[in-house]
This record gives sequence, structure tokens and C-alpha cells, in this order.
Amino acid sequence: MDIIVLKPAASEEEIRRVLKKLERRGLKANISKGTERTIIGVIGDTSKISEEEENAFRLMPGVEDVMRILKPYKLASRDFRAEDTTIEVMGRVIGSKKIQVIAGPCAIENKTMLMNIAEKVKGAGASFIRGGAFKPRTSPYSFQGLGEEGLKYLSEVRKKTGLPVVTELMDPRDIGLISRYADIIQIGARNMQNFRLLLEVGTCDKPVLLKRGLSATVKEWLMAAEYIMSKGNQNIILCERGIRTFETATRNTLDLSAVPLLKELSHLPVIVDPSHAVGKLSLVAPMAKAAVAAGADGLLIEVHTNPEEALSDGEQSLKPDEFYKLMEELRPIAAAVGREI
Amino acid sequence: MDIIVLKPAASEEEIRRVLKKLERRGLKANISKGTERTIIGVIGDTSKISEEEENAFRLMPGVEDVMRILKPYKLASRDFRAEDTTIEVMGRVIGSKKIQVIAGPCAIENKTMLMNIAEKVKGAGASFIRGGAFKPRTSPYSFQGLGEEGLKYLSEVRKKTGLPVVTELMDPRDIGLISRYADIIQIGARNMQNFRLLLEVGTCDKPVLLKRGLSATVKEWLMAAEYIMSKGNQNIILCERGIRTFETATRNTLDLSAVPLLKELSHLPVIVDPSHAVGKLSLVAPMAKAAVAAGADGLLIEVHTNPEEALSDGEQSLKPDEFYKLMEELRPIAAAVGREI
Amino acid sequence: MDIIVLKPAASEEEIRRVLKKLERRGLKANISKGTERTIIGVIGDTSKISEEEENAFRLMPGVEDVMRILKPYKLASRDFRAEDTTIEVMGRVIGSKKIQVIAGPCAIENKTMLMNIAEKVKGAGASFIRGGAFKPRTSPYSFQGLGEEGLKYLSEVRKKTGLPVVTELMDPRDIGLISRYADIIQIGARNMQNFRLLLEVGTCDKPVLLKRGLSATVKEWLMAAEYIMSKGNQNIILCERGIRTFETATRNTLDLSAVPLLKELSHLPVIVDPSHAVGKLSLVAPMAKAAVAAGADGLLIEVHTNPEEALSDGEQSLKPDEFYKLMEELRPIAAAVGREI
Amino acid sequence: MDIIVLKPAASEEEIRRVLKKLERRGLKANISKGTERTIIGVIGDTSKISEEEENAFRLMPGVEDVMRILKPYKLASRDFRAEDTTIEVMGRVIGSKKIQVIAGPCAIENKTMLMNIAEKVKGAGASFIRGGAFKPRTSPYSFQGLGEEGLKYLSEVRKKTGLPVVTELMDPRDIGLISRYADIIQIGARNMQNFRLLLEVGTCDKPVLLKRGLSATVKEWLMAAEYIMSKGNQNIILCERGIRTFETATRNTLDLSAVPLLKELSHLPVIVDPSHAVGKLSLVAPMAKAAVAAGADGLLIEVHTNPEEALSDGEQSLKPDEFYKLMEELRPIAAAVGREI
Repeated sequence: MDIIVLKPAASEEEIRRVLKKLERRGLKANISKGTERTIIGVIGDTSKISEEEENAFRLMPGVEDVMRILKPYKLASRDFRAEDTTIEVMGRVIGSKKIQVIAGPCAIENKTMLMNIAEKVKGAGASFIRGGAFKPRTSPYSFQGLGEEGLKYLSEVRKKTGLPVVTELMDPRDIGLISRYADIIQIGARNMQNFRLLLEVGTCDKPVLLKRGLSATVKEWLMAAEYIMSKGNQNIILCERGIRTFETATRNTLDLSAVPLLKELSHLPVIVDPSHAVGKLSLVAPMAKAAVAAGADGLLIEVHTNPEEALSDGEQSLKPDEFYKLMEELRPIAAAVGREI
Repeated sequence: MDIIVLKPAASEEEIRRVLKKLERRGLKANISKGTERTIIGVIGDTSKISEEEENAFRLMPGVEDVMRILKPYKLASRDFRAEDTTIEVMGRVIGSKKIQVIAGPCAIENKTMLMNIAEKVKGAGASFIRGGAFKPRTSPYSFQGLGEEGLKYLSEVRKKTGLPVVTELMDPRDIGLISRYADIIQIGARNMQNFRLLLEVGTCDKPVLLKRGLSATVKEWLMAAEYIMSKGNQNIILCERGIRTFETATRNTLDLSAVPLLKELSHLPVIVDPSHAVGKLSLVAPMAKAAVAAGADGLLIEVHTNPEEALSDGEQSLKPDEFYKLMEELRPIAAAVGREI
Repeated sequence: MDIIVLKPAASEEEIRRVLKKLERRGLKANISKGTERTIIGVIGDTSKISEEEENAFRLMPGVEDVMRILKPYKLASRDFRAEDTTIEVMGRVIGSKKIQVIAGPCAIENKTMLMNIAEKVKGAGASFIRGGAFKPRTSPYSFQGLGEEGLKYLSEVRKKTGLPVVTELMDPRDIGLISRYADIIQIGARNMQNFRLLLEVGTCDKPVLLKRGLSATVKEWLMAAEYIMSKGNQNIILCERGIRTFETATRNTLDLSAVPLLKELSHLPVIVDPSHAVGKLSLVAPMAKAAVAAGADGLLIEVHTNPEEALSDGEQSLKPDEFYKLMEELRPIAAAVGREI
Repeated sequence: MDIIVLKPAASEEEIRRVLKKLERRGLKANISKGTERTIIGVIGDTSKISEEEENAFRLMPGVEDVMRILKPYKLASRDFRAEDTTIEVMGRVIGSKKIQVIAGPCAIENKTMLMNIAEKVKGAGASFIRGGAFKPRTSPYSFQGLGEEGLKYLSEVRKKTGLPVVTELMDPRDIGLISRYADIIQIGARNMQNFRLLLEVGTCDKPVLLKRGLSATVKEWLMAAEYIMSKGNQNIILCERGIRTFETATRNTLDLSAVPLLKELSHLPVIVDPSHAVGKLSLVAPMAKAAVAAGADGLLIEVHTNPEEALSDGEQSLKPDEFYKLMEELRPIAAAVGREI
């Protein structure tokens, strides 16, 4: 809250009460009387005033509106840290010149399948293996994941292939378990404002891949990152995965403009998940290319050896040879924007 | 999944493979050859096939699309239970002729304030007291609630006023704590698809007030209820609280058409929270009236003795006398739709 | 544009250029130096600066952002005219205590049908007959309306029943034709920002029923009214008819909070079209009731004697006896909010 | 309409009536009795049944729902024409290997400025000059364009530079005027469902650049193209320019997934306007690159020699040297996807 707009009919007494209230919070005021409105510019550190606390002012007699100029997030902002944050995981650096590709099945179904996919995506140039052991499914009757068994498979895959592991945390009670197996902890879109979960990963020492909520603004997304960072964990990777709009021809609408926008507003690395965003196999490759052209630091891509039989999200999974072909096609685009893949 | 649409060019072999796959899942097929498309009607219990598993069929060669006719929720559906569910809490019956009003502050700030509000809303005709002890706030720097201390205040208020208590659960680890104090457990909009939390309240013996997610469709909302019900807890109260749209003049867009729609699709009681939906004091009363006229079984209304100093959501809180006036105005509307308040 | 926020690093020279530019436009400045940002309060008549012209300032070196406090509409605003606008048409006063109901078929199909419906809705208490002679259809292969023949039928209906006529104008070239037959000219949702059409009805002497665009904010809607009013025609009736959101269970999402909001922002009468908003017969009556409870000045309701055979929008049309029953049910709700119907 | 789903309780008599109605429309039925629902597959040419006329069936007693499998558009669909449509204008071929770039100011302000920009964008590699003579502005108080004078300037620019001209038609009465000057006629986003305007350009011999409506689905957009094509004009260029969502950090949300999706559904060329979509200078270049990577056939980019003084949309206009730099950066991306620019 940095500007208070007074009603045309605000009385001297009402203005005095606003000024007094500012004073009690250690803030000063600069009054600007216009022909139609009087404006109070608030001077001092207003960053600690929560968006909701602004209401105390907004509701005062004589006040028409209250505006905020400073961003509500601080640690996540580019103002706080000018240089790009880079996150190193087992020798891979996210946020560097090299575009990091995280690939694998939506859900882990069995060890053989996972190992098979991991070897193939590694061969194609992926840097990380992903796979869900705990799956947030919209139906209680759908496959919910293999649980710890799945995590063990991931661990074996890392051992054999050397690929670091990305997997999702759904429940604060699982933080110890997931931390033992994951190299990067994923927070899913539906949990982006599960604040207890955010605080939990804020105190762990693993990087966090924070997916954008289905209807989260860029500002709310950065506030979610701020939650984690406020607890000490500065290693956040933002992941655009499509937002919910009126359009039903694609599962979500991939908001690629969020990539360069986040690069301006924040120092955190930004990756893109085209698979979940479009939910349609044939659109994954064009959107992966577009993401790289838009400046993404990485990609999260679903790969499955047998999409027709996948227990989750097969509709959008690339087969290993399609993934290999995509990686080949991405290379010249990465080069065109001064990156490599 | 109940209908499979084949591509115009689907071969006999491709059709045979689809039929075989159906057979393996114990389903039968009725083939309908049109001039432009061939359609397979699936016969048998298709309700156990998850929305995601439909993809296995959708991705088969020769298949153009797959459609679902039956609803993905079962226990929550009106088909499953024709009569309205009623939920009794300390003598108050939600889902009955009487419209139940839950009132109180957004966050509990101190005991005196809470007691004061409780007595006033009771005097005005409210049936339940609400107040948050754990608050999901978009900023980590905002007031996060008093925690167990707040729950104790609620308990004292119930003792003194006889009002049952509604309060929010944010973390599965708090289920024991919240259950000791709450008469109805609230699941907030941001946790509507926090599936672990849903499963947790599914096994407890307290009714659950399930708020609609910010961008949840009515179908997803009923699927969230299904999650809880699938674990045994059938006492769900659905609460419409506004959805996120492009309009920024109100905080959210209150979707009142969801009320009569839910009455058709489900047997569960439906209440409306106009305060969060509009986020603007002057719109709360008209929207509360509209909700009653639309057929809501109850209202959730924020009341605060001193909104200007509220630590959360003061902008939309009614003062006790405004709440009293609203209750008076609601009575003839309730009567006009055959209800009482 | 009333506030200019400068970048922390804005130089004295940059600030001087901003001030000079304000001066050239006859505006004065009040500078407020905060700890993190400097703010310029603009003094003078800023209402003539278009939203787009603000960009000239926004793009200046040293400028971080530009904010507008004053509303971009003037004639349509409550500030401009404190008392409610009332519009009289053949003795019916829209915006008065009496809630005016406009009823009839979506499209005029033949004279007998129209006359039949008109007599029945009049008997049930409707004050206006509506019917489309020119229909905006999403498909070029759908029935496009009877054209002037339909207008003639409307004219005969008015003669016989005394009901004034509401019909839609789609094309500026038809203004003469429509004006000869209509008592109120409707501008459809898809034409809300068809600015040439708005200017055209701005110079005619018939009241205009201006439907909200599918994705129009309340501000844009009032700006569309401003377009008409800026040409001289002050008789605008705003009609909420649902907005486009992610929810697909209803055709659109009826935004009833727009009704009390518009009553605050503007002096113009506001009516509600529940039929188009929900697109589902069973939801029309509850939403009509909710609209009256929310403070609407009128309703626009589709009525058809044989919805199953309607050439347009039969899915949501009430039959005459259902309309009669609804009118009966609306009376006590109208009374409860101090109105009559 | 191709599938009719019956209610579980549909009587034999009700089913017979549905079949009879199908028969009257020359359609046949294949009945498929499931355990929970009976489904009627409709056989015959259902493409002439409008979406709205399906309601006649949907409202019949015993009918639960009606589904459409075939797309409502025909001439615009890939099924109708398998090979890509290419449109030649003065030697430039839209929809070919070469990505066509249309550049110029939002509004034409004066001749010198326009000529200056035209020469510069031509030098940088643009193939078309754009500029608005008639401007759809949200405020009646904003600059509305120079009218015919602006068109004359465009004509002089074409003469001097050889660049074909793209300009907007807002009013069916201006079709003759615009046709005399334009090489491609633009239909703006707000007029995408101005059906009279669509029919008007459907009978003219100039290619049409059809912008996507702010809240238009891809299906509705193709239906708008179908409107034009149904009148004979097959030369339609689809232009994605961002859709309206809840996100306010960008002006609109650029839906790049629409590009590859349209390439599947339709044979029409697709271009992208990143300038209007993002409304923010710094995001234009990354989104232009992403559009090319996603497979766009062209770009529409705002260029202005003096954005700070632009009378319209200066906020997002590139300066000529920025445009030159962008064109250079686009070349390797175009090459990477097998195109040239």
C-alpha cells in the first residue's frame, strides 16, 4: 500500500484520522490535492503491510481506494537479486546456458518400464528423470501411484543412469520420505497454494520445482515462491504448465508470455511443461519448441514407452523415438537463441 | 467412457483391436455405422474406468474420440441418492427448510472480540459461529492465525452461546487437533484439490464444509466431495464462494447458478459465501439475498465488530448491526421461496 | 491517468521531461518522494486523456507505471448523475419501483406463434414483447431470422396487445428499418464493442438495451454505454446476460454481483437475462428470482409455446404456463426487496 | 448432432417419438442399449443440423443429452481440403515456406510518419505494411483514426515501397472504400462475431485477415471463417492475438497452442500478432520468436518511429531498429523449423 486516494467529499477530520493511522505504523504522508481527488503518497517501508491489511485503510471514512506500487514479494523479485539464480544438481546447472530437459512418465508403473524410459531419454539428451510415485488424481477411483515402491525404482534408476530424480510431494507428512529419494522436489499445480506444504519444503535442502496453479496469476505464483524462500530455501524452479481458460480444445492454455515476464520480475529459473498444458500428443513438440524460443531454462516432458497403456496421462506422452526426434529439432532453436540443449 | 468414435478411415483390424480391448475389461460393444463415422456404444459398468484411462482407448489407431455419458462421481450424485441429504449438528439441520446462517470473523484475533461477535450474530439469528485459527494467506508475511489458542476461544464461545463451531483445516497433521474443537470442518477453496486432506477428513466423523476451488468446475467440485465420501464420510456441505474470471471489479465472480445446478446433480446441501466472493462490503447483502432466492440451504457471512482493524478480510465484513439488518431483510425472501431463516 | 510512479533510478532530467510533458497538456504535478519510489500526483482535468494515451507517459524513460483513479466513463457514471435514470416507454417506466419484464421468443418464427406468445406473456404480467427478426447465429447455416417480415409481425402484436416491442439491431444499415418498428433497440452481446453500431444508436431517439459482452468487464460495458451517450442518446438499459468463464456446465456464468455494482457505479437501469446466461430450462426460474433479489430493474425472459420446435434457443425457453408460474413466484420476492412486478 | 443419449427411464413411446422425428429429417438410427443408458447413433448427413436445432431433440421427453461428433464448420476444415491453402498477394505467398511479416503502426497518424515506418520495415524484411485508418477504440474520447485520408496515405506508401497494404474494416458501409485501398482486409477481434461484417467480406475479392475474438474458442473462430467462406471468399488468414483470461500482468494471454491446433483442424494459414497479445514492449520479441517456433505462417507486428508519442498502442510498438534486430533474430529460428523469413 503506497497511495491512498480520498473521496471528493473527505472531511478534514477524516483526512486527519488517516494521517494519524499512518503515523502509528511509522509511515509518513505526502498530500497531493487534485481538482477532483486528493491523493496521499505514503512514505516509508510499506513492504511489511500485507495486502489484506490495506483494507484497514480502504475502509476508513473518507477513503476511496488504496493502491500498491511495490510488489508484495521480495526475496523472489529481481529487485532483490539482480543476477539470475542458478541451481546445481549433480553437475547439471538449471538457469545456465544449457537448457535442462526433465523427462519421464507421468506415473511410475513398474521398474522395468521406468528403467527402459530412463535409458532412452538419457540417450536422447535428457538431464533428469521424472516420475510420480504419489499422484494427485481428480478421481479417487484412479491409480494413485506406487508410493515408496515407486521412489525406490527412481533411486535405482539414478544409480544406474546417473540421472537426478524429480518427483512430487503431495503431503507434508511425506517430506522425509521424498527428501531421501528426490533430487528435486516437485510441488504440483493443485498444491501451489497449499501453504503448509510450501513452508515444509522451505526448510528442506532440496531444490523445489514449483508448478503454476491452474488459475494462479504470475504475482500469486511468485508469492508462493516467496513462502518457500521466506523459510530459507532459495532454490526454486518455476514451471509454467498452462492455465485454465474458457478454451476447451486444449486441456489448458500454455501461457508462454509468462516466461519472459518472469525473467523480468524475478531472478529464478523458469521451465515449461508443454505436456500437461496441451494434453494432446501432436501439440507437445511445437509447444516445446516455442518454449525454448521464448527463453525457457528447461522443459518437463512426459515420455512413455507405451502411451496407450499408461495408467496416467498417456494422451500426451511422447514415445522414446518421438522424444529423440524432438530433442534433435530443439537443438537448432536453442542455438538460435544463444542456448544449448 | 461410453462411446468410442472411430476415424472415417479406421480399418477392420483397428476396430477388432478396440473391441478386443473392451472385452478384456469385461465390456461389450454395439457398433453403429454412420455415413461419415462409425460409433461404438460401450455396454457394461464403465463407471470404474477413470477419465485418464479413457486415453488408452483414445490413443488407439483408428480411434478419433472417446466420450463419457455417465458422471465420474457416484456417491455424490443425485442418481445414487434421490432424497436430499440433511446434516444435523447440535440440533441444527443443514439441508432442511430452515436456512442455516454461519457467521463470524474471517480470522480469530482475540477472545473478547470473538465472544462479542458470537453473541451478536446469535442475537441476530445465526446458527453457527465461524472463525479461522489457521489461515491460508497469500503472503507469508500476513497474519497466519492464532493456532490452537484460537480453537480454545471457539470452544469457550460454543460453551457460552451454544453455537456450534465451523473452522478450517489446512494440514492433514492437524486433523486430531481440529476435530477436538470443530463441529464442522471447513476445507478452503485453495485446498479443494488437496487430495490428501480430503482423504483425511473422509475418515473423520465431523461434517465437512467443502468450498469450491477458485477455478474448479462443478464436476471437479463434486469429484472432490466424492474423494471424501469414498472414505466413508457422507456429511458434505458444498459452499459456493465465487470463481476466478477475467472480471476484476469484484474479487471473484459469485456463480449462483451453481446452486440450482448442484441441487439437480447432487443430493448434498449447498450454501453460499457472498463475503469472499465479492470482497466488497456493499455487495454482500444483495448477494446474500440473491443466494437465498436461488435456493441456497445456508449462508456463510463474515461479521466483525471493527472491520477497519480486522487482521484479515475486513474489507468485506459486516458490522453486527449490518448483519442484524441483513437477517431481517432475508426473512421475507426466505418465506417467498418456501423457506425460513 | 492521475498518478505517475517513477523508477527508483529516475534521473532529475527524466523527471523534468515528464513534468514538461504534463505541462504541455495543461496539467500540473505534485511530487511525492518516498523511500523506494517517487510518485507524481497529476492535478487538472485528466478525464480527457484516453487509456491508450497514458502509454505515452508509461513509456518515458524513468517512468515505472501510470495509474488512473478517475473512471474513464463520465456520462454513464453515478458521479455525473446522482439520481437513477428512468426510461419511459408507452407508459412503462424502466428503473422505477416496478420491475419490468420483457418476454417472448428468441427468434420470431411466424405471426400466429408470436401473437399467441404475446397474449400469454401479457396475461402473465409481462410489460414488453421481445423477438428477434435479425438473429446473430454462430453458424451461417442456422436460421438467420425473418427480417422485415418479423418486424411487421411485432408491429401487429403491439397494435393488438399494447405491448411495446424490443428487437435487435445487428447492422448500422438497418437503423432506419429497426427504428420504425422497435420501441427499444437491443444491442446484442457480440456487438457490445461494435463501435459503429453504438454510434448509430447514439443518434437515434429510441432507448437502447445494451447487453454485456461475453468477456466484457463492467468498466468496458459502461464505456460502451458512454459511446452511445456521447452521441446524445441517454436512454440506456444495461442487461447482464452471463459472462464466459471456464465453467461449461452452464452456457455462461450469470454475474449477478454486476447488478448492485452497477447501481453504485452508474445511474442507468440494469436488467437481467437469465435465459441466455444459463442456457438450461430448469435454471431459468431460480436465476430470475435471484436477479430480483439482487436488485435488478427488470428481466428478459425467453418464452416459447413449443420450445422443442423452436428455431433458436429452445433449450432455455419457458412455456407460457411455466412463465406464468414464475411471475407468480417473483411477486413476493419483489415485495421483499421493496419492489413490485 | 450424431448421438442421442436417452434417460434410464425413457419409455418405449418416448423412444418411438425420437425415432420418428429423426425420420422426418431424413435420418436413420442405430440403437445401442447399455446397462445404464440407451444410446441412439444417428445415421445420415447431420451436418446441416445447426447446433441450436439440436435442442429440439435435447428437450424431448426421455432424452438426456445430445452429442455432436462432426465439426460444425465444413469449408474451413482440414477434412474438406487436405492441402494447405496459400494466398498470394502481389507476389507474396501467405501459407508458404516463407514466413510473411506484416508490420507498421497501430493507427496511421500522418503521411511522413507512415512512409518513414514503411521504408524502415521494408528494409528490415517486412512483406506488408499495416496501419489503421478506422480504429475501434474502447473510449469514444480516444483518437478514432484519420479515415479515408489515412487510406490515401497507405496507397501512396504502396506505390512508393511496393508493399501491399493491410487495413481494418469496421463497418459494412465502408466495404467499397476499404476495398479500393486495401490488399488484405482485416477484421478486428471485437468484430469476429459481427456476422454482417463477415458476410460482407465474404462477397468481396480481397483476402481477409480474421483476428480471433477476445473470448472466442478455436471452434467459434473457425465458424466465423466459415461465415465468410460460405459467401464465396476462400482466402482467409487466421490471426491469433491473445485471449482474455484472469491474468492481468499481460494485456491478453497469447494462445500459441492454437497455431499447431489450427494446422490440424483447418487448411487456412495462421499468423500471430504478439504485439496486441502482450501489450508490453519487452515481451513482443520473445513471443514473436515463440510464434515462429510453434509453426506460424506469419507475424503482425506493431512498429512506430516514436512510440512515446503514438496516438494508439504505443506501449507495445517496436522502434524500427528494434524491429530490424528482431527480424535478424527470427531468421535462424525460422531456419530451425524449416522455414525462411
